Amino acid sequence: PEEDSTEPLEDRELCRYGLPLTGAEIRYYSNHTLSYDQTKRIPRWVLEHISREKLLGKADRKHCRFKPDPNVPPLFTAVNEDYLRSGWSRGHMAPAGDNKCSGQSMAETFYLSNIVPQNFENNAGFWNRLEMYCRELTERFENVWIISGPLTLPEVGSDGKKTVTYQVIGKGNVAVPTHLYKVILAHRSATSSEPLALGSFVVPNKPIGFDRPLTDFQVSLVDLEKMSGLSFFPLLDKTQAVQSICDADPCKLMGFKEFTLYITSRKVNSARTLPRLEKAMCELKELAIEPDAYLLNLYEAKKKELAGAVSREDKSG
Amino acid sequence: PEEDSTEPLEDRELCRYGLPLTGAEIRYYSNHTLSYDQTKRIPRWVLEHISREKLLGKADRKHCRFKPDPNVPPLFTAVNEDYLRSGWSRGHMAPAGDNKCSGQSMAETFYLSNIVPQNFENNAGFWNRLEMYCRELTERFENVWIISGPLTLPEVGSDGKKTVTYQVIGKGNVAVPTHLYKVILAHRSATSSEPLALGSFVVPNKPIGFDRPLTDFQVSLVDLEKMSGLSFFPLLDKTQAVQSICDADPCKLMGFKEFTLYITSRKVNSARTLPRLEKAMCELKELAIEPDAYLLNLYEAKKKELAGAVSREDKSG
Ligand SMILES: [Mg+2]
Ligand SMILES: [Mg+2]
Repeated sequence: PEEDSTEPLEDRELCRYGLPLTGAEIRYYSNHTLSYDQTKRIPRWVLEHISREKLLGKADRKHCRFKPDPNVPPLFTAVNEDYLRSGWSRGHMAPAGDNKCSGQSMAETFYLSNIVPQNFENNAGFWNRLEMYCRELTERFENVWIISGPLTLPEVGSDGKKTVTYQVIGKGNVAVPTHLYKVILAHRSATSSEPLALGSFVVPNKPIGFDRPLTDFQVSLVDLEKMSGLSFFPLLDKTQAVQSICDADPCKLMGFKEFTLYITSRKVNSARTLPRLEKAMCELKELAIEPDAYLLNLYEAKKKELAGAVSREDKSG
Repeated sequence: PEEDSTEPLEDRELCRYGLPLTGAEIRYYSNHTLSYDQTKRIPRWVLEHISREKLLGKADRKHCRFKPDPNVPPLFTAVNEDYLRSGWSRGHMAPAGDNKCSGQSMAETFYLSNIVPQNFENNAGFWNRLEMYCRELTERFENVWIISGPLTLPEVGSDGKKTVTYQVIGKGNVAVPTHLYKVILAHRSATSSEPLALGSFVVPNKPIGFDRPLTDFQVSLVDLEKMSGLSFFPLLDKTQAVQSICDADPCKLMGFKEFTLYITSRKVNSARTLPRLEKAMCELKELAIEPDAYLLNLYEAKKKELAGAVSREDKSG
């Protein structure tokens, strides 16, 4: 076969009407790169590079809308209707939150080529905390590369047979992955001689509680490659020393209290009415969590802002 | 994204350690071309071009052995042990029988990159007859292109949910397709102005009887493209007239009697002992099928050959 592959295609009767297109080619966006799976209507892998500077900015997801990727042929693209009332959320692979530096690059993460059907609680909870951990890594590592994607893994039945089973949703039969993976590669600094830090994680597409540490989900890179059918970081010299990310870093996700305070601060920030604002603070109280100084300041400022808006409305109305 | 794709990769921090490899690239062999699915360990599609002349020759599958494709990375290749005692046969996508013209090209069809786990009866029966039909087409069409491959199609459950379920076999988790497809494109002759004839067929990976005509399994090309995630014959001008192959040709598979005579003649041909030879003829009798003149001649010649070998053994022993 080696000799044949150098033969010009045009010479071969075989290729007169073209070779089948798989659409697996690499697609480049402003701040992420991916290969799309035309059969499953979800990405195969999505690669990003993040750093402390790149994460700064004011781009806001409230200006973004999920939409079909205009670069994917219509026959093979997912559409919002596939997800609607499916019981599954639209889960980003390259997170919107990694793209605060550019409205354009954030908008591109809302293309459905970057989205998979994800359990709502997993998306808002464990996976969200994993994404936050990746961003936190940029405080301790100069360069962080992240590859995220879906898996459909087999299960062993009571008869010993192994079976892959996954739901498909919508008219487009968008595949609901059984698991999601992340490969993280972190580089300390240009001046450090420390080996690169690498971690591979496989997370089931379902709710995961605060009791489960990230290390519970770590797998070897080669095992993930076998599961996914992909080769990751092919230019990385794996004969050279590479350390486990969880040896180089605590690998600790945000805990329940800190995470709940963070989520509440986001709710307070985006509240558009006084009742919404009060509801966010009430929920916190019901969880028996004391607001910290940052949250209290945010709450007071928002209360003034909304009260001002109400009194202006009263005057004009 | 369009602008970015022209940017040299070397310039991008993103690509410092390489982009993930999917292994979906096109692989060329002497007489077939394919894209391999590294996740499922089976081909995605296999393309051949056949013609009357190309089908002539004396290459024999008895000299061929199934083996891992040396061009596929070991981590992602299927091995014979994955199939052994799995309950599934090794089913060719590009058939060995289309490669009588070259021992090399026939041997390459036994690479496991061209093989899927196929129901034994389907492989020996319906699918075999479909392959014979494709070869028969070369008597009436100058050029025939065939694309074959596996599918894992969803089923609708009693709760209305759509689910893809398929078995995986061996340590390598080789995917057992739920269905197989064939796309056939046939060109009458260089001098004919007749439109090209096109047919797409989706066949369940299970036994199919002689009562089922080929047309039962015909689907539209665009439906097959949607199911498979592939675009077929991209250089074919689909705005021009293309006729259904079953309008241009009877689309008739070999019937029970003729097929059984053919199978018996192969058994007679390959019999190495007199009891084996007699068994083949007995089985035919049990099916109440009269041997035709061709088979009777073959049988008599083989009987003499084997009797001669026995008497030579007697003398030398
Ligand atoms: Mg998310
Ligand atoms: Mg076969």
